[in-house]
Amino acid sequence: MCILYTCNYTSSVSYAENLCCSYPCQNGGVCLTKGFNDYECDCTSTDFYGRYCEVPTFTKRIKLWLKPSPSTLHNLLIGNKWFWDIVNSIPFIRKFIMKRVYTIRSDIIDSPPTYDNEHSYITVDANYNLSFFTRTLPPVPIECPTPMGVAGQTKLPDIDELVQKLFVREKFKPEPRGTSALFSFYAQHFTHQFFKTDIKRGPQYQWGGHGVDMTHVYGKDKHDEHLLRSHTDGKLKFQTINDEDWPPFNKDVGVEMKYILPVQKDNDFALGHSFFGNLPGLFMYATIWMREHNRVCDVMRKAHPDWDDERLFQTGKLILLGSTIRITVEEYIQQLSNYNFKLLFDPTLLFGEPFQYQNRVALEFNHLYHWHPLMPDDFNIGGTNYTIKDFLVNPKLVIKHGMANFVDSLSKQNAGSITVKNHGKYTLAVVKELMKHGRTLRLQSFNNYRKRFNLPAHKSFQELTGNKKLAKVLENFYGDIDAVEFYVGLITEKRRPKAVFGETIVEMGAPYSVKGIMANPICSPKYWKPSTFGGDVGWEIVNTATLKKLFCQNLKENCPEVSFKVPNFVEEQDKPLDYCDGDCQQHGGEL
Amino acid sequence: MCILYTCNYTSSVSYAENLCCSYPCQNGGVCLTKGFNDYECDCTSTDFYGRYCEVPTFTKRIKLWLKPSPSTLHNLLIGNKWFWDIVNSIPFIRKFIMKRVYTIRSDIIDSPPTYDNEHSYITVDANYNLSFFTRTLPPVPIECPTPMGVAGQTKLPDIDELVQKLFVREKFKPEPRGTSALFSFYAQHFTHQFFKTDIKRGPQYQWGGHGVDMTHVYGKDKHDEHLLRSHTDGKLKFQTINDEDWPPFNKDVGVEMKYILPVQKDNDFALGHSFFGNLPGLFMYATIWMREHNRVCDVMRKAHPDWDDERLFQTGKLILLGSTIRITVEEYIQQLSNYNFKLLFDPTLLFGEPFQYQNRVALEFNHLYHWHPLMPDDFNIGGTNYTIKDFLVNPKLVIKHGMANFVDSLSKQNAGSITVKNHGKYTLAVVKELMKHGRTLRLQSFNNYRKRFNLPAHKSFQELTGNKKLAKVLENFYGDIDAVEFYVGLITEKRRPKAVFGETIVEMGAPYSVKGIMANPICSPKYWKPSTFGGDVGWEIVNTATLKKLFCQNLKENCPEVSFKVPNFVEEQDKPLDYCDGDCQQHGGEL
Repeated sequence: MCILYTCNYTSSVSYAENLCCSYPCQNGGVCLTKGFNDYECDCTSTDFYGRYCEVPTFTKRIKLWLKPSPSTLHNLLIGNKWFWDIVNSIPFIRKFIMKRVYTIRSDIIDSPPTYDNEHSYITVDANYNLSFFTRTLPPVPIECPTPMGVAGQTKLPDIDELVQKLFVREKFKPEPRGTSALFSFYAQHFTHQFFKTDIKRGPQYQWGGHGVDMTHVYGKDKHDEHLLRSHTDGKLKFQTINDEDWPPFNKDVGVEMKYILPVQKDNDFALGHSFFGNLPGLFMYATIWMREHNRVCDVMRKAHPDWDDERLFQTGKLILLGSTIRITVEEYIQQLSNYNFKLLFDPTLLFGEPFQYQNRVALEFNHLYHWHPLMPDDFNIGGTNYTIKDFLVNPKLVIKHGMANFVDSLSKQNAGSITVKNHGKYTLAVVKELMKHGRTLRLQSFNNYRKRFNLPAHKSFQELTGNKKLAKVLENFYGDIDAVEFYVGLITEKRRPKAVFGETIVEMGAPYSVKGIMANPICSPKYWKPSTFGGDVGWEIVNTATLKKLFCQNLKENCPEVSFKVPNFVEEQDKPLDYCDGDCQQHGGEL
Repeated sequence: MCILYTCNYTSSVSYAENLCCSYPCQNGGVCLTKGFNDYECDCTSTDFYGRYCEVPTFTKRIKLWLKPSPSTLHNLLIGNKWFWDIVNSIPFIRKFIMKRVYTIRSDIIDSPPTYDNEHSYITVDANYNLSFFTRTLPPVPIECPTPMGVAGQTKLPDIDELVQKLFVREKFKPEPRGTSALFSFYAQHFTHQFFKTDIKRGPQYQWGGHGVDMTHVYGKDKHDEHLLRSHTDGKLKFQTINDEDWPPFNKDVGVEMKYILPVQKDNDFALGHSFFGNLPGLFMYATIWMREHNRVCDVMRKAHPDWDDERLFQTGKLILLGSTIRITVEEYIQQLSNYNFKLLFDPTLLFGEPFQYQNRVALEFNHLYHWHPLMPDDFNIGGTNYTIKDFLVNPKLVIKHGMANFVDSLSKQNAGSITVKNHGKYTLAVVKELMKHGRTLRLQSFNNYRKRFNLPAHKSFQELTGNKKLAKVLENFYGDIDAVEFYVGLITEKRRPKAVFGETIVEMGAPYSVKGIMANPICSPKYWKPSTFGGDVGWEIVNTATLKKLFCQNLKENCPEVSFKVPNFVEEQDKPLDYCDGDCQQHGGEL
């Protein structure tokens, strides 16, 4: 039996149980079975109608006709530098475009959230149960004939084999846009405040606050926050070593820290996030934000000599939150987009729009953000070479080399490329776990996610990868392009011109990111005003924050290199996706 | 020292510490100290400017000039029946007005929430810490010279004296609009799903989901929900007694129930809310919603024979949520508003508006909703008289009389009037606790709340109460009209013409209610469609739910009286507020 739109499969399994397994409804229509032998598509609020919600309304038809494709937009944004130089220099045009970026991206994300990890339909719990990650697409119903619904085989490929053939790094592939290792650790440090899987309860559970809440700096809850605070002048506890301020040892604080290897006493620091003692790069960011907080408290105490410790602390936290978001939008996302359009963090652009100031972290966003290929195999810090193994559970390396030296070195070091066969040895266990979780939680196919995010489904493995050899490997694994798993699709997809990623990571990641950031309460009209940040002085800090200032205002030495892009990096011409399997040394990637 | 706008006090206390204690900023401007001797008002996003944010912008001036006052609007809505009969019969006009009701009311509530109970300024925690009630106005800073800032005396009146003089019921005052006891228990049953003070942690904490989440029917969490479920055909557990379905005994279920007196075994039922075994009226609602859920499951199983227990259960829950909201808006709020305009529950009216589909229960809303005077001293059930004491921890009374008899009796019985000197004996402990909590959490003055909700501050005790004797009593307690406590102001305020309440309860309560209800996720565009409720059959139930159907579709007998208003009640002419103190029998209220 073959339902329209999903007929490119052959399956001998009977699936009379649930006709919705073939995902017949298009354009966001909701499939509802009518007994065992029929179904209907609910097209309400989709701007489409018809049996499969396949016919656009007249207005929608015009909109679709006028709307440029994602790849046209991408090409516009990465090229035409002269054009964007003009646009960037005219504030009202820049703001007009930025507003469109905010609304077009964030409109794609359902808010309030709709699905959870345990039901293939809407439930009350999907909204009210905050201990769940949300789901953008619901799980594939358990009664469906194949793990992807009806496409593909009844059994998914062996995970070890997949990892071996698709993910294992044989030779290090550098990120071709010159993204630095400083960027990699920023990504990890920033996102771990909201990607918090509560693995003891199961991969569908999380223990965070579903947003940019600065818990990675101030601790997971009020209890830890109090432990980390000095309760004097608003400041966080610190210690001085080698004439620099560092986080205190945890024996003097007592927050919960978790290490992946046994930890030495002089490596056990008290940090906002329990994981951040595991890597010097994370420890570096934890330190610099701690210093920034204490610096801001000094500034605010001067402006408000009447304020007590509590108010200085709370206002410092708000200022750091604002600074974090500005740096994330204007420098971090700028680097990963590689657009010539200069991104802008300006919450006022959304005032009066039907934008929801609430966020829920999606399981799919968490999976998508598994950017472990960014991590190189070794790091050159001030001339000394360290392997990843030397880095593990060894934060004191930062103290040894000093903050300036450390940030300088990471700025000058190329991150890894997010592509096939570029997961370093120490990240393989993570990607295996990830694949398992995706299956346990019955993630829909990569192509279903493309459609959900307004992208055409890939029609062939060649179209997905742009590489014959890799296409063949994938075909052997999955048989059907509509059966490719989510994370596999993301990583094996061909890179876009002049981009850091393939199309899907950007077209999915950007909506989640923009939504997550702009939905922060400080971006809402009642928060976004000088008094929230302690008046003009704090407001100025938030509105002029940069990554360079973050580091250099908290260093006694001269300002080192602080950059998300390796300085003087010369981008090569775009090359097709590079795939080799056990034969990398011989001939590199075959096309 | 006397700051503009709050000069009607005399205080010898120095308050050089915080000039914001006098609340100098108007119209939502945020006061920020500048050292010890100065302050500024942040007027951002208020549509006002000037030192105190006292000057409206040109556009705002015109809006204010065009905007009718709350009392003009009230008089329009309670009178002119012929006019409203026409309006109610023309759908597009009715919808136009209802949309204005939704937006005007809900715009008053800050969303995302801004304040918590522990800071007089915005914090990150105010948004992210869900265990707090939110605050609409922040607490009075602790360093202020008086509990209300600068107004009034340094010490608030003795609570026992206040309660004696203002709240103790000497003779029962019936609700003058004919509101029934069925209404009282609806209010209590419905609101207890989100008014959940976590008193062990402190009055600022709560243990609920901040909205209409049906936890009062299905249990406080997934664990309790599973205990209450039969896991067959989606249904909740029940038992049959006297040929009627009732909730099971808790010995067979094991959820946590809390009783205010020792409970007999045959009175200990398993209900969604731990408190609902304490009163037969609550037990009645718990039972009828349980029956309705099971009835809906039967209906849905017929429409979807392919569905499993889980899907029937989850869809039943969504349908009951939709039905609850419709009954609450179109019948419950209709009754308490006493408007001639026929209220409408239509979520589509807010689609495309900058309305926030999120809600946070405010401490002030919880305090405002302490409507204990609604409870009469005794109940006539099918001819037998029961005192409140007979009612306590005695749910089996409902079983004894039967559901039909019980709901009929409550429908015909007049509730108490929400006014001074009308708190029954058994509710006095509650109101004392409430007053204490208001002080611990440093609630701002009644007049500050009036201003926050766009009402002019009362200028005298006479203006507040409309009753000379009561005005004198209040003046003796507080000295200054700007020092009157929040709950005291609400209860002592004169009743509006033809209304159930004084002006402030309505002008504050309506925004909280409308916001809380319409912000429910099911009202958002992705939820509000037939498929969410299991298709046309469920959609029809949600769209035609009434209180009468809720009861009568779940009774085997003929349909009894089911009404929020006592049938054939003849409203008397409005009388001024009735206040007497120990001399009620002699002369009633003196004016």
